[in-house]
Amino acid sequence: MPDSPNKPPYDPAFASDNVAGVSQEILEALSVNASGPAAPYGDDTVSAELTEVMRSHFGPRAEVLPVFNGTGANVISLQAASPRWGAVICTRSAHIHHDEGGAPEKVGGLKLLARPTDLLTPADITAELHHQGFVHAAQPTVVTLTQATEQGAVYPLEQVAAVAETAHAAGLAVHMDGSRLANAAVALDVDLGTAVRDVGVDVLSLGATKNGALGAEAVVVLEPDRVPGVDYIRKGSMQLASKQRFLSAQLLGMFGTDLWRRNAEAANRQARRLAAGLDACPGVRTVREPQVNAVFVEVFDEVAAAIRSRYICHTWEHSPDGHQVLRLMCSFETTDEQIDDLLDRARSAQLTDIAEI
Amino acid sequence: MPDSPNKPPYDPAFASDNVAGVSQEILEALSVNASGPAAPYGDDTVSAELTEVMRSHFGPRAEVLPVFNGTGANVISLQAASPRWGAVICTRSAHIHHDEGGAPEKVGGLKLLARPTDLLTPADITAELHHQGFVHAAQPTVVTLTQATEQGAVYPLEQVAAVAETAHAAGLAVHMDGSRLANAAVALDVDLGTAVRDVGVDVLSLGATKNGALGAEAVVVLEPDRVPGVDYIRKGSMQLASKQRFLSAQLLGMFGTDLWRRNAEAANRQARRLAAGLDACPGVRTVREPQVNAVFVEVFDEVAAAIRSRYICHTWEHSPDGHQVLRLMCSFETTDEQIDDLLDRARSAQLTDIAEI
Amino acid sequence: MPDSPNKPPYDPAFASDNVAGVSQEILEALSVNASGPAAPYGDDTVSAELTEVMRSHFGPRAEVLPVFNGTGANVISLQAASPRWGAVICTRSAHIHHDEGGAPEKVGGLKLLARPTDLLTPADITAELHHQGFVHAAQPTVVTLTQATEQGAVYPLEQVAAVAETAHAAGLAVHMDGSRLANAAVALDVDLGTAVRDVGVDVLSLGATKNGALGAEAVVVLEPDRVPGVDYIRKGSMQLASKQRFLSAQLLGMFGTDLWRRNAEAANRQARRLAAGLDACPGVRTVREPQVNAVFVEVFDEVAAAIRSRYICHTWEHSPDGHQVLRLMCSFETTDEQIDDLLDRARSAQLTDIAEI
Amino acid sequence: MPDSPNKPPYDPAFASDNVAGVSQEILEALSVNASGPAAPYGDDTVSAELTEVMRSHFGPRAEVLPVFNGTGANVISLQAASPRWGAVICTRSAHIHHDEGGAPEKVGGLKLLARPTDLLTPADITAELHHQGFVHAAQPTVVTLTQATEQGAVYPLEQVAAVAETAHAAGLAVHMDGSRLANAAVALDVDLGTAVRDVGVDVLSLGATKNGALGAEAVVVLEPDRVPGVDYIRKGSMQLASKQRFLSAQLLGMFGTDLWRRNAEAANRQARRLAAGLDACPGVRTVREPQVNAVFVEVFDEVAAAIRSRYICHTWEHSPDGHQVLRLMCSFETTDEQIDDLLDRARSAQLTDIAEI
Repeated sequence: MPDSPNKPPYDPAFASDNVAGVSQEILEALSVNASGPAAPYGDDTVSAELTEVMRSHFGPRAEVLPVFNGTGANVISLQAASPRWGAVICTRSAHIHHDEGGAPEKVGGLKLLARPTDLLTPADITAELHHQGFVHAAQPTVVTLTQATEQGAVYPLEQVAAVAETAHAAGLAVHMDGSRLANAAVALDVDLGTAVRDVGVDVLSLGATKNGALGAEAVVVLEPDRVPGVDYIRKGSMQLASKQRFLSAQLLGMFGTDLWRRNAEAANRQARRLAAGLDACPGVRTVREPQVNAVFVEVFDEVAAAIRSRYICHTWEHSPDGHQVLRLMCSFETTDEQIDDLLDRARSAQLTDIAEI
Repeated sequence: MPDSPNKPPYDPAFASDNVAGVSQEILEALSVNASGPAAPYGDDTVSAELTEVMRSHFGPRAEVLPVFNGTGANVISLQAASPRWGAVICTRSAHIHHDEGGAPEKVGGLKLLARPTDLLTPADITAELHHQGFVHAAQPTVVTLTQATEQGAVYPLEQVAAVAETAHAAGLAVHMDGSRLANAAVALDVDLGTAVRDVGVDVLSLGATKNGALGAEAVVVLEPDRVPGVDYIRKGSMQLASKQRFLSAQLLGMFGTDLWRRNAEAANRQARRLAAGLDACPGVRTVREPQVNAVFVEVFDEVAAAIRSRYICHTWEHSPDGHQVLRLMCSFETTDEQIDDLLDRARSAQLTDIAEI
Repeated sequence: MPDSPNKPPYDPAFASDNVAGVSQEILEALSVNASGPAAPYGDDTVSAELTEVMRSHFGPRAEVLPVFNGTGANVISLQAASPRWGAVICTRSAHIHHDEGGAPEKVGGLKLLARPTDLLTPADITAELHHQGFVHAAQPTVVTLTQATEQGAVYPLEQVAAVAETAHAAGLAVHMDGSRLANAAVALDVDLGTAVRDVGVDVLSLGATKNGALGAEAVVVLEPDRVPGVDYIRKGSMQLASKQRFLSAQLLGMFGTDLWRRNAEAANRQARRLAAGLDACPGVRTVREPQVNAVFVEVFDEVAAAIRSRYICHTWEHSPDGHQVLRLMCSFETTDEQIDDLLDRARSAQLTDIAEI
Repeated sequence: MPDSPNKPPYDPAFASDNVAGVSQEILEALSVNASGPAAPYGDDTVSAELTEVMRSHFGPRAEVLPVFNGTGANVISLQAASPRWGAVICTRSAHIHHDEGGAPEKVGGLKLLARPTDLLTPADITAELHHQGFVHAAQPTVVTLTQATEQGAVYPLEQVAAVAETAHAAGLAVHMDGSRLANAAVALDVDLGTAVRDVGVDVLSLGATKNGALGAEAVVVLEPDRVPGVDYIRKGSMQLASKQRFLSAQLLGMFGTDLWRRNAEAANRQARRLAAGLDACPGVRTVREPQVNAVFVEVFDEVAAAIRSRYICHTWEHSPDGHQVLRLMCSFETTDEQIDDLLDRARSAQLTDIAEI
């Protein structure tokens, strides 16, 4: 968990992509047919249409279960992919490990086997298989990959496929945390099916909230045989909406059009713009070229303070030589004006140390 | 669970109150300020305003935690009110017992001690206290009352207070499932604080979805000492929204105005209208005068079939002499035209048995 | 839970069958080879021999997993027989429902569907199947029968078979709580395989503790396809013994000889003797002929007091006309002298009401 | 988890300390009064006497709850020390993390915060406190230390006290996994109270099984205010024995005499003897001087093979230069003859590499 030194009235615009509002298209999707009766719990026509759209992305066997939030999508998926005695192979920086309040353990009883890496490789899977059949160890039964990661990295498709192949060969299921899948697909310049179905994912947490929805995510089952009981687990995990049509409408507005792509492109583009601008500032070094909508920059303290004169931003970690590494997130809503203002502030910092960062 | 013999395209208008759409005021509350950044996870100004509104209803110590759905509100509340070894005293017809997919047991590890009644009395509490301190029995630590009940009944305020007093005297906490609290408060002709705070409730599941919201409920803590850790439990139970402002906006639109009352009055009024009309139909007997928005009628099979020529409706149970008892729900949206159409159909039934029902 | 009005120094001899000590044969089985190294966690030769013995009783596919106590055996079995979304059909008087501190719910997240009966019939199973596939209801996935029951009743073999057939036809697994299986088998005059395997049981909690062991029970898997993962579940449920050989030795001493039968015969016989004696006492009525080792008698208060001048005994319930119904348990250790002493006390009661009970 | 390349008929004498049998004193303690009735579930006189003995060790407020095994003791203790939202600070090599089949997560819903160390320091606690109050992170509520550790190390008393002080100052409880507490106390040359109570431990898992009991451990509560509900949690975690007197008798035989000390001294002494002998063998290097009863030696493959010509032993890890590191455990039963035989085999290895290891 990074430091969050500022609270409102400071501006959260770059604090995360979940500070963004709602796309106009999503609001319209909600308003259309907002009144009048509809069958509850997914027996409505909007939900039926959503299923068709998801099958156009992910294949004819795909099932979609709209849920409320990303933690819900993840914990439902992982439970469905694991019998009672299962454990989850993840990375040390996975959202399920650090940012979900222990929900996988608490709700699913799932032990997390956190690998010391930010991007899983087949060797990570193999290392944990050492304990298969050893009754004293929680049994790895599912692998989860985050695409794109919390660090703003994108798995090459071949790497996901290789991890999935290793997992499947050992009888494990494969889950993708796609809270920012749209950003990753845009970065990879592929469609959603290519990013998910073609690389061996069995069950997907599909995100829409960060990318312009009001609040809607989905569990997408691609390989039903490996993730049984998802509908019962969704209910028992308190994520079945009575008025599901309003979750479905958001997802339809997002994935039944190219809104997912447009919004993600905007967010990724602004991140590149922000990174380029920051890189040109004295006392700032871009840690890595942004692949998606996250910008990580190593800064002198004076620069951090100047940015924080208005904007909330997280010190993600410290660089080996002790400088703060800031994470700045862009969203579909991020404007050129916001970026310019942040850059102006960064450039205005009075540096006491004239050395290069 | 009642039978649900019809699926769409049949009309769900009377199948439940969760088939209703969204009040225009709620849609507007969502649209205002829908764009632009806001602090996530409840650190936004709308959520702050909601807290003030809730304190005006429930007193200055009240805390409000918006959540996604009623099952979430209930299971979070009951967990907070129970240590690990706790059990929940409820009625045999409680929603948590029959309609939440085992979530209290699965997520909270909570055993339900279901009393053979639809309305709890102090004697029900006392009966379960028999096992206090007996290590072989799950320990009752919280009582839950549903106001109004699944059967459309409303607890007299004195009865809630008496149950709460008995519970508190034994060290138990008191939870109210207020999924339809607005309907009950209108029926009792009291404000929300009178219906909840003044009768000893420690933690409330406050419903808005059935009463015109798009999808928003809240855990309201009235007695923080008896329900510790609610914020952590909400997170670990996967019910913390990143864009919480949109849950808060709905709740503010509902409870920061008199919308909760207007919508509930409309629903209750239409239920009385529907019941009166049905009672005048041959082959129909109103089981009980509707207190809130649920109508229960005993009908000849021909009448049931006639209603079902268009409308989905549930056979809730069978009467002692074998007739179907239908449950028909009204909502804030139910129109006179819908009621008239349903009554026309009911009256059109060709009864083979001319006897009185 | 019955009242337990007396604490030591009062004599617990008839309070339960778990007050009994240990059979000499069991102590000897523990002493033999008690020193010297043996492979832990069941990889020892005694455990291997136990498997052979269990297969001689229950067939060549049987697997035996020694565990510490009956609650452990039950909760492991039920978890293995249920996916995450499963619920358990049981009776209202089942030990798992009233006497296991909520362990099925807490450890397994299992909802119990308690039928209003003490002996399940196929109709009880069918009644609960109503909800199969209805996502709002916890899904029945396993049926549990107790043989003999807490009420001292014995299921006819045909009834177990009929329940199992109905359960299997609906895809449910069948568990038997055989905490007192030996007493039931003796009452039925059948061997263990006939009492269990031949009537369709998939997984058995096999009791030895009450019947003369120091402390040892077992999960016996008869149909591995219906109860997967038992070994992992035993471990994760904290019931895998490091020095398992000492559990296995007790079970071998009990079921590798006819000790189970001899001890159960003794207990059942003494219960008949006690019941006959009590029935001849003024102010006592035997509620039902004892089938196993439990005696239920309706008594005048004076008789109860006279018995309790020395012996702890539970008021199990009250008869329709308000008399106490006492439960008195016999064990393999119960002596004629103890019975005679209890009878003397019962007969010594000064009855104020001369009417027949 | 280490490799276990051999199965019986190979000799498990050095594979672990749980391969040992039972001390004669323990068998005698079980045999005395083994027959005849006694109150169940701890209401017996042996259990009462055990409480007195434990208070003589751990102070007048101590409560003792006999349980079946070490995993049970740990998971009960940690649950009692943590509210529903709690997480556990432990080491990367803790038994609860690697060897308990995920029971803490599964039964307790507890997230483990594993520190990259084998011996906790106050700085480890402080590092995890960073997240206190941050709702997205599981909240650290209890620290667990293992005394002696799985690596055979013993915490200095001052280090335990310092960790406990840091924990308590932050509102966390302190648990000690004392599965091998006797070995540690002997190594530290202190009594049990000094090793536990005086250094700030709130709840202890007290081990007897590895040190000569048949199968008995205990949860010892030292600070009841920090670990509420232990008795209910023990029951709901399936670790309450009906015939508890036989667990209590073992614990009394162990801790009501100096048997715990004698047996631990014997085990520790034989470990030193074994280590000294191995250190003198070609191709062997003692990794560290044994503090308790575990011997870790780096060996050439030929030596490992020679030892394994008879004895099961685990490759615990590999040294930086690729040699196997073997773990050999001694117990109270380990004889000079066994050690001499193992040393003879080790010395008989034909080394192809004449270099020093």
